[in-house]
Amino acid sequence: MLKDYNKYLEYRNGELYLDGVSLKALAEEFGTPLYVYSASYIRDRVRAYRKAFPTALICYAVKANFNPQIIKLVKEEGAGADIVSGGELYASLQAGVDPKKIVYAGVGKTPKEIEYAISSDILMFNVESRMELEVLDQIAERMGKKVRIAIRVNPDVDPKTHPYISTGMKKSKFGVDIKQAKEEYEYARNLKNLEVVGIHCHIGSQILDVSPYIEAVEKIVELYHYLIKSGFDIRYLDIGGGLGIKYKPEQSNPEPSDLAEAISPILKDVKAKLILEPGRSIVGNSGVLITRVEFLKDKGHKHFVIVDAGMNDLIRPAIYDAYHHIVPVEKRDGRYIKTDVVGPICETGDFLALDRELPEVGRGDYLAVLSTGAYGFAMSSHYNVRPRACELLVDEGKYRVIRKREDYTYILSLNS
Amino acid sequence: MLKDYNKYLEYRNGELYLDGVSLKALAEEFGTPLYVYSASYIRDRVRAYRKAFPTALICYAVKANFNPQIIKLVKEEGAGADIVSGGELYASLQAGVDPKKIVYAGVGKTPKEIEYAISSDILMFNVESRMELEVLDQIAERMGKKVRIAIRVNPDVDPKTHPYISTGMKKSKFGVDIKQAKEEYEYARNLKNLEVVGIHCHIGSQILDVSPYIEAVEKIVELYHYLIKSGFDIRYLDIGGGLGIKYKPEQSNPEPSDLAEAISPILKDVKAKLILEPGRSIVGNSGVLITRVEFLKDKGHKHFVIVDAGMNDLIRPAIYDAYHHIVPVEKRDGRYIKTDVVGPICETGDFLALDRELPEVGRGDYLAVLSTGAYGFAMSSHYNVRPRACELLVDEGKYRVIRKREDYTYILSLNS
Repeated sequence: MLKDYNKYLEYRNGELYLDGVSLKALAEEFGTPLYVYSASYIRDRVRAYRKAFPTALICYAVKANFNPQIIKLVKEEGAGADIVSGGELYASLQAGVDPKKIVYAGVGKTPKEIEYAISSDILMFNVESRMELEVLDQIAERMGKKVRIAIRVNPDVDPKTHPYISTGMKKSKFGVDIKQAKEEYEYARNLKNLEVVGIHCHIGSQILDVSPYIEAVEKIVELYHYLIKSGFDIRYLDIGGGLGIKYKPEQSNPEPSDLAEAISPILKDVKAKLILEPGRSIVGNSGVLITRVEFLKDKGHKHFVIVDAGMNDLIRPAIYDAYHHIVPVEKRDGRYIKTDVVGPICETGDFLALDRELPEVGRGDYLAVLSTGAYGFAMSSHYNVRPRACELLVDEGKYRVIRKREDYTYILSLNS
Repeated sequence: MLKDYNKYLEYRNGELYLDGVSLKALAEEFGTPLYVYSASYIRDRVRAYRKAFPTALICYAVKANFNPQIIKLVKEEGAGADIVSGGELYASLQAGVDPKKIVYAGVGKTPKEIEYAISSDILMFNVESRMELEVLDQIAERMGKKVRIAIRVNPDVDPKTHPYISTGMKKSKFGVDIKQAKEEYEYARNLKNLEVVGIHCHIGSQILDVSPYIEAVEKIVELYHYLIKSGFDIRYLDIGGGLGIKYKPEQSNPEPSDLAEAISPILKDVKAKLILEPGRSIVGNSGVLITRVEFLKDKGHKHFVIVDAGMNDLIRPAIYDAYHHIVPVEKRDGRYIKTDVVGPICETGDFLALDRELPEVGRGDYLAVLSTGAYGFAMSSHYNVRPRACELLVDEGKYRVIRKREDYTYILSLNS
């Protein structure tokens, strides 16, 4: 069953290994909490996208995991980057991503960020509003540059996911309503420092059923044909990301090929280059968060396993009520208990699992929290003045630190 | 009405000032997003606690805002520190807090953290479980030290606040059920490296009505008298923190004197020193988050004000569905609009306010998000590779940077 999360995750003689490396050995060498990502898994996932969409540009959604070594890994497999901030541009360039493979979305681009992206000569801006069109045009004029853009179109499709990560509905802050899109394209055409080259949409995140994509792509392709007829030179059709991953035992990891199968027929007359922006579906199940059991607490009516990873390390359970599967790093044959797995932070919202059936564990045992390669470290904080976790990359039996563990001085180094 | 949040917050000739300093001038000098805290307000609040509880030890709950300059300010008013981690101990010692005024709670203290606190000779550990008693005893033995402890008792009182910050109920991970408390005290008495000196409880956070305190303190005082009769030398009665603040216009800031009035009669025969752990009620309304309007977006059915502060800067709206009042930094006489105030992060959960009535604003205007001195910067992250905000302290017309704005290199400085 572990293999269904990540085929490089397995017990060997009762001890959990990721990509050929013992997680217990890593926990003992580097301490906990510890994020460990499998390079082989990440490569496989990028390759699966490239195989399913051989002519498309795969732009990795940096927001899922911004570690430059992770970005470098996907880059080496031919991917570009989907960014949403100047910081993500910086991380992508540090990782060596070709700017010509970078697309930049986001509703709140600042003038500084826009200038940075223009001077980096990225592939295109995915523009989210009329006012952004105007601001981009002004900044481009001032810089004496011509800027390639797509307009982010909101197809009003319900992706059936958590409301916080559903981004393509009418009431959302993102994009331009599809009914207004033609008008915005006409407006953009008249701005002389912009070059209208694409259509963008992104309907949400953690989507397990491909049917919302069919609906969205149908609408986008209809717009594409209209724009082509109206004389626009639409060279890129960016259909965003959002493919989900297996979090719960009863879920499965949708394959890029499932998505390709569903939408390829709709795209058959489209001459534009397809762009996809997968993030979670590339890195999510590459990673585990290793945490140590500090205390056990049996209140009679309620059992607690208290671990050293908290909501500052992994906020998804608190913010999205997210399920993360948890397994012991050393296999246990003992009885199962029903327990809350909670962190050390002083909030009741600080939990990793509630009322979970787990093999009985002891103080000092290590647990692996699965599916934490995406939106794990990326959303981590210093809440309770907790230094953030170390990040490791494992690769066919080898391992290396890709971000050192923080210490107290790092947290306060900018303080006076 | 602003005065009800913070009497040092006021419009002067239509421009918002905090503690005698123009917030517009600060935003222009230091950029946005920008946290600004009023030193005068913080001093007033500590003094109000000290006046209401003249013989008590006020231990500032560092988790609310861990900036060492803030901790230093409360220390200079005679307060100690309530900490929940080694990092908070470090920040408190950096700020010059007397270790003899430091109490340490938290369900997941690690061996390293325990050693650090023992060697710092803090006032006492607030112990959360039987297993923690044992571990503390073992570590103390190894270090050849005697460790002062209180047991955190869970009075099973409903503080009528958000479930995530309600910490004193039976099903909570915190403390020991009050019915088990006597047994745990007897157990602790037999551990020869521990010195049982106190009782601790903490029922939750953002409590606006003092009645749950009455119920909790009554239960704790009953336990106190029992323990005294049983021969324990209970010298400290730590009743925790949790007093709320005004977030919504219709709420008011409860005063420490309201709490004193409610619980003093119950405490009249208690000889132990009272300890209080206020955090939010000291710093919460000292602070504002200044943000700049980047874009306006009118989708017909829905209006958006897009600002440069996101959920990485202030996560309370996303995680607790929290209300923060928002006012323009320059007073506007125009019409009011109903709008969502949203950040630049690529999530629908990234909002500061939903369907809020706001005076119409323009691109480049600054907004002040009120009541952000607590659990604002403290919970901020690098999500979307966004450098965290600068923090400023203003004090009777003067101002200084107490944490520099981060840049991209800071975020990635520990990466390989």
